[in-house]
Amino acid sequence: MEFDHAARRARLAALLAGYTEEPGRDARGLDALLVTDPVNVRYLTGLVSSNAAVLVRADGSAVLATDARYAEAAGRLCRDVEVIEARDTAGALAGLAHGGRVGIEAHHMTVAAYRRLGEWPVPTQGLVETVREVKDEAEIAALRTACEITDQAFADVIERIRPGMTEREIARALELRMIELGAEKPAFDSIVASGPNGSVPHHSPTDRPVARGDLLTMDFGARYAGYHADMTRTVAIGTVADWQRDLYELVREAQRAGRHAVRAGAVVHRVDAAARDVIAAAGHAERFEHGLGHGVGLAIHEDPFLAPDRHGPGDGSGGAGSRPAAETGRAGAVTDRRGECDREGCKLKDRVPITVEPGVYLPGVGGVRIEDTLVTRGDKPELLTRTTKELLVL
Amino acid sequence: MEFDHAARRARLAALLAGYTEEPGRDARGLDALLVTDPVNVRYLTGLVSSNAAVLVRADGSAVLATDARYAEAAGRLCRDVEVIEARDTAGALAGLAHGGRVGIEAHHMTVAAYRRLGEWPVPTQGLVETVREVKDEAEIAALRTACEITDQAFADVIERIRPGMTEREIARALELRMIELGAEKPAFDSIVASGPNGSVPHHSPTDRPVARGDLLTMDFGARYAGYHADMTRTVAIGTVADWQRDLYELVREAQRAGRHAVRAGAVVHRVDAAARDVIAAAGHAERFEHGLGHGVGLAIHEDPFLAPDRHGPGDGSGGAGSRPAAETGRAGAVTDRRGECDREGCKLKDRVPITVEPGVYLPGVGGVRIEDTLVTRGDKPELLTRTTKELLVL
Repeated sequence: MEFDHAARRARLAALLAGYTEEPGRDARGLDALLVTDPVNVRYLTGLVSSNAAVLVRADGSAVLATDARYAEAAGRLCRDVEVIEARDTAGALAGLAHGGRVGIEAHHMTVAAYRRLGEWPVPTQGLVETVREVKDEAEIAALRTACEITDQAFADVIERIRPGMTEREIARALELRMIELGAEKPAFDSIVASGPNGSVPHHSPTDRPVARGDLLTMDFGARYAGYHADMTRTVAIGTVADWQRDLYELVREAQRAGRHAVRAGAVVHRVDAAARDVIAAAGHAERFEHGLGHGVGLAIHEDPFLAPDRHGPGDGSGGAGSRPAAETGRAGAVTDRRGECDREGCKLKDRVPITVEPGVYLPGVGGVRIEDTLVTRGDKPELLTRTTKELLVL
Repeated sequence: MEFDHAARRARLAALLAGYTEEPGRDARGLDALLVTDPVNVRYLTGLVSSNAAVLVRADGSAVLATDARYAEAAGRLCRDVEVIEARDTAGALAGLAHGGRVGIEAHHMTVAAYRRLGEWPVPTQGLVETVREVKDEAEIAALRTACEITDQAFADVIERIRPGMTEREIARALELRMIELGAEKPAFDSIVASGPNGSVPHHSPTDRPVARGDLLTMDFGARYAGYHADMTRTVAIGTVADWQRDLYELVREAQRAGRHAVRAGAVVHRVDAAARDVIAAAGHAERFEHGLGHGVGLAIHEDPFLAPDRHGPGDGSGGAGSRPAAETGRAGAVTDRRGECDREGCKLKDRVPITVEPGVYLPGVGGVRIEDTLVTRGDKPELLTRTTKELLVL
């Protein structure tokens, strides 16, 4: 895939010039941002490295620092940025920028790293994440492929699910099939939860064999060209009881309401409420304990987050169904989304991929979750995961 | 696998009581440590979660905080610690511990998260990492299984490698086979580098087909029960030129020297030197640009790091061949290893799994790397990766 990294840096540079620490009070802007999150470095330069940082200046120029292991790749990939070789990448770039007003990524940089820099740069939050939120068509194409692989793996694996197969075997079958179909890797550790285990939203697959009469929830996805698909389906094994069908139809109705609320300009907590209200009206408000969804892209969980209006705008602290995704597993990653928010709340932009994944979880009994990945396209989102949402009885 | 999490917490608690910020000056100790790194939380409690933290007190007691998505699993897994449900896990635990002398993990906690806490806890580094360094037999058994899967996948896949197969296809074949053999997942993104690409230590597999006359380097491993295997072999395709054989034998000799230097009590920079000196004597000092090796365990790169004596003791900043491993991809993760270091340098302890992976990289030409995972066992390490180091010509 060919991505336009220069255009991304230009969008970031435009944000830097207008950056204010406290809206209305401090309008000095930033001369540069020291980007240290590896996902953000990849987004801005194309370089995949565990030790790289990039300094993006408000004039649009950039310097990429990495160590000897990645320097050759960096020089080849990043022809339009200056590349320097350093072991202490953040330190080297901060040295270059000293004297200017330079931001750091406070939601990524550790306390220890900031101390080593001398704590003079300005802590900022979510600048690159804001740029990443709106995808270009090449990114959406990568996500579409990731979702196609996900759909196909599901179709192939459900043919083979029988009572007696364990959760772990089903997870492995899904993951193997995605790789055979061209995935780089699974987008995250697959969740396969059967019977009573379905009441744990983030259940890790066990050796429990699925049994006739179980509901079986599979939450998984493919990664392709760095982009993460995310889909959940709940199916029934062999037979379906009335309460199971009722629960399934309730979640399906909530998921439909959520999807229909997804449009460019929609306030995120209202999208969440569209689905949540359906579940609450059925008396299960307390049994839907996570946010409705989250952005997907180079990370499996990224802005925006669809969640209830708990603390007003700006609360993106893992509201949605965030799994143990290493990319977002930092202590307290919270991004600053003031730019898109007003008194009504934060709003969805156009060309934003997002999941819609309501669930109802009954402790000791089981649960249902249905999740799609969509992209906002004006008034009508594009659905990327196309697997049926009819209740399948395997 | 059954792991003794209580014993781990007891070892950490013992460290807290003796903690000093500046050796010789400040011997107040810590009342508790607020552990936020998900790998450390897993190590101390068994809980795998993207949103959990654990407060371990110097008296050995502990409180685990996680959100509603993981609370049920936490209660089931962690019967001997108090479990509280919170969205802001670090904030909730810091509140419980307020008034005491509490440490945070400064090499993991972000600047933003520390600011939200109010910056009153004491920044510490590497306390849990120090405890993690020495493995118990259950951990070594998990690593042994991970390495067996890695060996077997290599044996199975090299049968199928032919000229024309691409780097990406070979990487996928290795990863698929490891999963078929029982791996949870690949331990990291596999490196497959053929011909001139072999000069990039951390090359990402491309669509380049391997050709007769190439050297082919494969660096990969299986993850099993959370533990990471790491092995590299370089093979020749079809034929082998004299310079290739000479380069291979040089690296093989360096790797042997490195392995033979691995023993409990060895100074880490001397282990590095044992291998590096062999390469330097052949005139390639500048072509071995990374550290000799790194610890493995619940992370693919962890303490100790085998690296040259650049800055004296305590420089563990990614010296060894660290790949884009999300677990260690933090900006500036550096741990504090004073406890095991003296004027000679830091020393290897007993029962420490570690890689030995020298390489020589010739820009534009190619490279060779040979890597094993070993465990220190008194004077003679246990070799966990058992694949032959004879030069294979496929």
